[in-house]
Amino acid sequence: MNETSMNGAESLVQTLLDCGVDTCFANPGTSEMHFVAALDRIPGMRCVLGLFEGVVTGAADGYARIKGKPAATLLHCGPGLANGLANLHNARRANTPVINIVGDQATYHRPFDAPLTADTEGWARPVSVWTRTATTAGSVGSAAAAAIQAACTAPGGVASLILPSDVCWDVGGLVAAPLAPLPTPRVAPDVVAQMARVLRSGQPTLLLLAGRALEQEALASAQRIAAATDARLLSTTSNARVARGRGRFAVERLPYFGDKARELLTGIANVILVGTPVPATFFAYPGKSPRPYPQDAAVHVLARAEEDLADALARLADELNAPHLPAPAAVLVNPQPGSGAITSAAVAQSLNALLPEGAIVVDESVSFGHAFYPGTVNAAAHDWLQVTGGAIGDGLPLALGAAIAAPQRRVIALQADGSGMYTLQALWSMAREKLDVTVVVLANRKYAILQHELASVGATTGKTALDMLDIGNPDLAWVPLATGMGVAAARAESMAQFNELFAMANRQTGPFLIELVIP
Amino acid sequence: MNETSMNGAESLVQTLLDCGVDTCFANPGTSEMHFVAALDRIPGMRCVLGLFEGVVTGAADGYARIKGKPAATLLHCGPGLANGLANLHNARRANTPVINIVGDQATYHRPFDAPLTADTEGWARPVSVWTRTATTAGSVGSAAAAAIQAACTAPGGVASLILPSDVCWDVGGLVAAPLAPLPTPRVAPDVVAQMARVLRSGQPTLLLLAGRALEQEALASAQRIAAATDARLLSTTSNARVARGRGRFAVERLPYFGDKARELLTGIANVILVGTPVPATFFAYPGKSPRPYPQDAAVHVLARAEEDLADALARLADELNAPHLPAPAAVLVNPQPGSGAITSAAVAQSLNALLPEGAIVVDESVSFGHAFYPGTVNAAAHDWLQVTGGAIGDGLPLALGAAIAAPQRRVIALQADGSGMYTLQALWSMAREKLDVTVVVLANRKYAILQHELASVGATTGKTALDMLDIGNPDLAWVPLATGMGVAAARAESMAQFNELFAMANRQTGPFLIELVIP
Repeated sequence: MNETSMNGAESLVQTLLDCGVDTCFANPGTSEMHFVAALDRIPGMRCVLGLFEGVVTGAADGYARIKGKPAATLLHCGPGLANGLANLHNARRANTPVINIVGDQATYHRPFDAPLTADTEGWARPVSVWTRTATTAGSVGSAAAAAIQAACTAPGGVASLILPSDVCWDVGGLVAAPLAPLPTPRVAPDVVAQMARVLRSGQPTLLLLAGRALEQEALASAQRIAAATDARLLSTTSNARVARGRGRFAVERLPYFGDKARELLTGIANVILVGTPVPATFFAYPGKSPRPYPQDAAVHVLARAEEDLADALARLADELNAPHLPAPAAVLVNPQPGSGAITSAAVAQSLNALLPEGAIVVDESVSFGHAFYPGTVNAAAHDWLQVTGGAIGDGLPLALGAAIAAPQRRVIALQADGSGMYTLQALWSMAREKLDVTVVVLANRKYAILQHELASVGATTGKTALDMLDIGNPDLAWVPLATGMGVAAARAESMAQFNELFAMANRQTGPFLIELVIP
Repeated sequence: MNETSMNGAESLVQTLLDCGVDTCFANPGTSEMHFVAALDRIPGMRCVLGLFEGVVTGAADGYARIKGKPAATLLHCGPGLANGLANLHNARRANTPVINIVGDQATYHRPFDAPLTADTEGWARPVSVWTRTATTAGSVGSAAAAAIQAACTAPGGVASLILPSDVCWDVGGLVAAPLAPLPTPRVAPDVVAQMARVLRSGQPTLLLLAGRALEQEALASAQRIAAATDARLLSTTSNARVARGRGRFAVERLPYFGDKARELLTGIANVILVGTPVPATFFAYPGKSPRPYPQDAAVHVLARAEEDLADALARLADELNAPHLPAPAAVLVNPQPGSGAITSAAVAQSLNALLPEGAIVVDESVSFGHAFYPGTVNAAAHDWLQVTGGAIGDGLPLALGAAIAAPQRRVIALQADGSGMYTLQALWSMAREKLDVTVVVLANRKYAILQHELASVGATTGKTALDMLDIGNPDLAWVPLATGMGVAAARAESMAQFNELFAMANRQTGPFLIELVIP
C-alpha cells in the first residue's frame, strides 16, 4: 500500500499492527465505518464483536492482563464510550494498557450538535492516562503510536484516541513507527536502605503488595523478606492478576471489610507499600475508620506502581541478606471435590480438586465466593483475575478477553448472578468465537452483598427496602439466557451435579455455563 | 417524623414526595443504603428495580415523557452513573425532566481514592441542565427541590444530584418546600409578525416542529398555518412523544438520510424553526452537506425549545387570520392486517389494523421499521416515542418507564434485535412489575443500518468488515432470552403468526415478547 494514498483509518490500522496491537474488541457505528472498511484492505487485525460496549472494554482489559500487551477497542461516539466507561474504570484501577479508540462526529460536523454529539473527551479523560482527539488524517498514525506508548508505560493505563470520521476518511494518512514505552524507574538506594531499617526494627511490619509485585519473581523476593524478618505479607483486596496454585509462592489478601482487616492487622506498627497507594476501605461507614490498618501504624513506601517493583523487592531482600527460598512443593493436599450442602467452602473444595492445569480464573463471585480464593491456594497452577475498580459487570467480559488472549488455556468465570446480568451479552461473543470458557453462575437470586451492607447501615427489615436487594422475583433462569445466546448450559442443584458438570465442561471445546443454584 | 432527627436520606425522600416525585427507578449499591432504608420509614415512594443502570435511566425518561412529571433515578457512584449515561444522553435530547440521584463516597472518604471513586460530577455534567453535590445533610432537601425545579423548567432536562453517603446518614436533614418551575417565556410580538411576513411572502416555506409543538393543540395551530399559507409542515426526525392516529392532526417527519431530506425539500426558500435548533444530518458523509434542507434557504426562528411553543403557533395562526380546522375524521381506512411476505410495509399494515386504542408505541425499530410511522397515521389513537439522541438501547427501558407511568394503557415496543441486546435486562423489570408491554423484536440478525452506512462510505464486501456488522453467528434466540427473565414469549415466522400473536399479546395481562423473524 502506498502511504500517500492511505486514508486516516488505514494509517491507524497499519500503525496498530506495526506496534504489535493486533486484536480489536469492537462495537462500531456509522462513524467507525472507515476503520471497519480498512480491516479488509490491511490484513492482520483480529476483530472480536461485542453486542454492548461494556463487553468490549472489559474484554480489552482481560486480554491485556493475560497477554501482557494491549488490545484496541472500537467504540461509537460519546454514548458508545459511556457504555464502556465502567469497565474502563476497572481497567484504570488494574493499570491495564488499553488502546481505547472512539469514533466521533466529523470535525466540521461537531458544531451542528447533531443528536449523537456529546462530550466524548470529557467522558474519556477521567479513566485515561492519555486522551487525544486527532484533527487531521496525517496525525492519526502518530497519535496511535503515542497512545500505545502512553498505555504501555508503567504502570500501564487506558489511552483514549478519539477519531472524528473525516480524519478517518481523508487521504494523507501516515503510518507511524512504534515508540518504546518510557523506562520504568528504579527505586533509589536510600529508600531500600530505609525500608531495611524498618524491617530490622523488630516492630510488627506489614508488606502490602499490589500489581506486578504479585508476579512470581517479585513474590519470591517478598517471601524471602518475610521469612528473614517475620514481616507479614498481604496483597491488596482486588488484584488484576495473581499467578498462584501448587508449586507457586502464595500470598493472602487484605480482607474487604475494614473490621476484619483491622482485626487481622492488630498490633502492626509499620505498613510498607509496594505498588499500591495508601489503602482505604471500599466505602465509609458511620463511626468507623477508613483505614484497614491500625490508626497509629506508620506508613512507608518502598515503591510506587510506576516503579520497578520486582527490582525493589529483590534489592530489599538482598539488603537484608535474606536467604533464597525453594518454591513450594507441588502436591495436591485435598484431592476430593466438595460434597454435601452447596456452600462457598464446598465449591472452593471442588475448584481446588478440579481446576484444570493452567486455568485462568476470573472471580466476580462477590459475596458467595468468600471461600474460593483461600480454598484454592493448593489448586493446579493458575492465574486469578478480579474486578479491580468495584464496578460490577466485569467478570464475563474479562473472561472473554482472557480467552482470546490464551486460546490454549481454560478460562473459569466464577460469576455472581446479580453482577453477571450487567454484561451478559459477553456470552454471545464467547459462543461466536468458540472460546473455552466455563462460566459458573452462583445463583443466589439476591444482591447478597447489599443485604449485608443494608444491615450494617440501616438495620431495616421493611419490605420496600428489601425488595430493592432481591432479584429473585422473578428468578433469572440462566440456562435459557445462555442458550439464547448460543452457549450450551445446564443447571446444578447439588454438589455432585456441579462436580460432574464442571469436570465435563472443562474437557469440552467451546463455552459452557453452569447455573449453580444456591439454596 | 420530627425533622430535627431526620437524616439526609429521609429529608430527600420526603422532599421528593412533597414535590410530587413518587416514582424511583433504582439500581442501588452500598452508598445508597440509607436512601433504601429511608423508603421503609417514609411511605409513598414506588421503587422499580432495574438490573442495569441503562434500564434505570431509560425508564425514567419513558416515565416522564408519558406522565408529564419526573421520576427519580437511584444510581451507585461514578461507574453506576456511567452505565446510565447513554440513556441520559437520550433524555437530554428529548428535554425530559429526570431527577438523577447518584450516591457516592462519603465526603471525607473521597480523598482516599478507594476503588469505586471516580469523577462523578464530571461524568454527569454533559448530560445535565443542573448538577450539584450535596455536602451536608441539612442541604440535601433544598438541593432536591432545586433539582426538581431545574428539571421541570422548560424545556426540561436532567438534574443530577450527587449524594455522598455521609450526607445521607448524618442527622439534620431538612425537608424543603416545592419550588415552582421558572415561567416559560412567550415569544415577542415582533417575532410572530416577522414570521407572518415570511409566510405571506409566497415563497415555499417549511415549518419544522419539535418538542411540545407536536402536542395536539400546537399541531392544530400549525395545521391552520399550513392550510392558510401553503407552508410545508414537518417534525424533526426523532421525537420524544407524538400524539397521533385516527382523529388526530398528523405530521410527517424529516427523513433520517440527508439525501432523502434534501430531495423532499427541493425548492424550499425558508425554514421556520419551532422548538428545534438548526437541523443537521445525524452524521457527516464525504462530500455531502450537513444540512437536510437546500443550501440557499433562509433559516428563521419562531420559538426556541425553552419558549411557549403552543402559544407562539396559536398567535402566528391568528396573525395570519388562519381559519380553525376540524379534527380529522376517525375512520379506519384499511382494516386488514398485513399478509404475505414479512416486510416493513406488511408489519406496518398489521400495526395500523391491530394497534390497541390508547397504545403507547416505543419505536427503536431502526432500519427495518421504515414503513411503521407513515403506515400507522390512521391507526387507533396512540402516542409514538422515539430514541432521541441516537444512543441505541433505549427502546426496552423507555417501554418499561412508559408502562409504569400509564398502567391502563398497552405499551408496544418495536425493537430492532441489535439495539435490543444493549439493555435486554429491562425485560426482567417488566416481568417483575407485571406490566402490559408487548415487545416485538424485529430479528434480522444484523446491524442492517451499518451495512447501509458501510456501503455509503467504503463500498467494501470483505469478510472481516462484514463480520463486524453480522450478529447472526450465532443467531440470538429471543424466546429463551425472554423466558430466562420471566417474560412469556413466542416466535413468528409468518405474517399470519405475527397477527395472531400480536392480537393475543395485547389482550393479555403482563408482558409478552414476539420474536418476528425477518427473512
